Amino acid sequence: MHISKALITAAGPDQHTLPLQRVVDQRGIERTALQLIIAEVLAAGVEEIGVVIQPGDEAAYRAAAGDDVERLVFLSQPQLRGYGDAVFRGQEFVGGEPFLHLVGDHLYLSRTDRPCAAQLIDVAKQHACAVSAVQATRENMLPFFGAIGGRAVPQQTGLYEVTAVVEKPSPTVAEQRLVIGGQRAGYYLCFFGMHVLTPGAMAALGKVREQSPPDRQVQLSEALADLAVRERYLALEIAGARYDIGMKYGVLTAQLAIALSGADRDQILTELVELLAGVAGAAS
Amino acid sequence: MHISKALITAAGPDQHTLPLQRVVDQRGIERTALQLIIAEVLAAGVEEIGVVIQPGDEAAYRAAAGDDVERLVFLSQPQLRGYGDAVFRGQEFVGGEPFLHLVGDHLYLSRTDRPCAAQLIDVAKQHACAVSAVQATRENMLPFFGAIGGRAVPQQTGLYEVTAVVEKPSPTVAEQRLVIGGQRAGYYLCFFGMHVLTPGAMAALGKVREQSPPDRQVQLSEALADLAVRERYLALEIAGARYDIGMKYGVLTAQLAIALSGADRDQILTELVELLAGVAGAAS
Repeated sequence: MHISKALITAAGPDQHTLPLQRVVDQRGIERTALQLIIAEVLAAGVEEIGVVIQPGDEAAYRAAAGDDVERLVFLSQPQLRGYGDAVFRGQEFVGGEPFLHLVGDHLYLSRTDRPCAAQLIDVAKQHACAVSAVQATRENMLPFFGAIGGRAVPQQTGLYEVTAVVEKPSPTVAEQRLVIGGQRAGYYLCFFGMHVLTPGAMAALGKVREQSPPDRQVQLSEALADLAVRERYLALEIAGARYDIGMKYGVLTAQLAIALSGADRDQILTELVELLAGVAGAAS
Repeated sequence: MHISKALITAAGPDQHTLPLQRVVDQRGIERTALQLIIAEVLAAGVEEIGVVIQPGDEAAYRAAAGDDVERLVFLSQPQLRGYGDAVFRGQEFVGGEPFLHLVGDHLYLSRTDRPCAAQLIDVAKQHACAVSAVQATRENMLPFFGAIGGRAVPQQTGLYEVTAVVEKPSPTVAEQRLVIGGQRAGYYLCFFGMHVLTPGAMAALGKVREQSPPDRQVQLSEALADLAVRERYLALEIAGARYDIGMKYGVLTAQLAIALSGADRDQILTELVELLAGVAGAAS
């Protein structure tokens, strides 16, 4: 399986300005969230990136993309038909090949030398099938995520065969359909905002989209639930963390996590101590 | 002295998008930096606000201003002639009255019940003269600020008669001209980004601007140095802190300071502990 293309979705009405925000990266260099996402994708070996945006956002995205702007192809989502529809807008761009998909409002931090997207692509290539990145997530966070059910792949740490996908499950549904042996009680495997999707996944998405009334949001999770029935579909627990910068304090948390694991760790720790001591005002 | 107008400058090439950034305020509500600055100004009793912007930024600023947009008058800085020129663009708007001036890239946090701008206006009204907010600032930060020299006003804590103003002084110049009795060694009184300016200050600015070659940046500090010679001009150490959101980690520091002094303090402390323990990835 060769994966040369990535698709980033950034057209959501509440999300479309998030990738334009500035953050300081691990090396201590200020860049846009979009640039960090592009770097994550390129480090995974991807060569060309489709970005699904709202009509009218292209100039701002071009300006925010930095030096890698020539790797980008902008795709427009003319109607706000939801996340699944945004992914489907990339159908022509991916051209019947498997592709990496990332949401545009998450930042990622690996706990290993291998970036999160690269971990995911490694597994997709090895098993030659669709793979979704997942993360063990507390039950109280289920209203924010899609979650999977399945069974552990023998002799493979953190790898699961997906048998069910439910978008924002209730605790009852989660307990009935999504409990996976070996997981901590009260934790479920929720989507990480990063997938390797196959032509089969794109076809399932097209079907869901066609069957949805035009005023209903098209859900990627619905297509992935269908995919789990039709072809081998895995989920990988990534050795890393995702930060949704669209949540309240999302940018703060992401920026802190990046800075505390990067070149400026000592400076940030000092500032934290000063702030917590309440002396920052007098001393800065 | 009645102060009914405020002038916010937000036209700098590196600063003009900063007021559009989103931050969570002390009550835990996500707003733009512009909205926080407007709230600071209105809490000081100001009724009308002039905002100096780059041509073409008005739509973005209108969208970012929220409910108080009808209080705003947009003024354009057509040429990038510096900070002093931006202030001078407000001359007609302030109409020969004293006015409050704030830079558009700072957020303020008071250490008292009285917001920073209100503290400043209280003193300006009491003394009926121009007053600059200042803050004791470490010598190593001098390259970033304008600084004042002067003498303490008797029986008034934190109030100084300004005799000299130097923009970004070298340590030698600072030691020769800006040492003030009673200040901690190695600390100088630097501008806080907030002033009450008089018609005399605006006239001094007009003169500096006229004498500057068109390719040179017009400095407010130069005009204030002139003002100190011509009329009574005070500096007030504000009981509060300023956060320059244009600096590296500026938004992070401002957001942390706001959150740690606000309604969500406990939540943020918990997140900090989780991040510092390195478990946020697995637990969130």
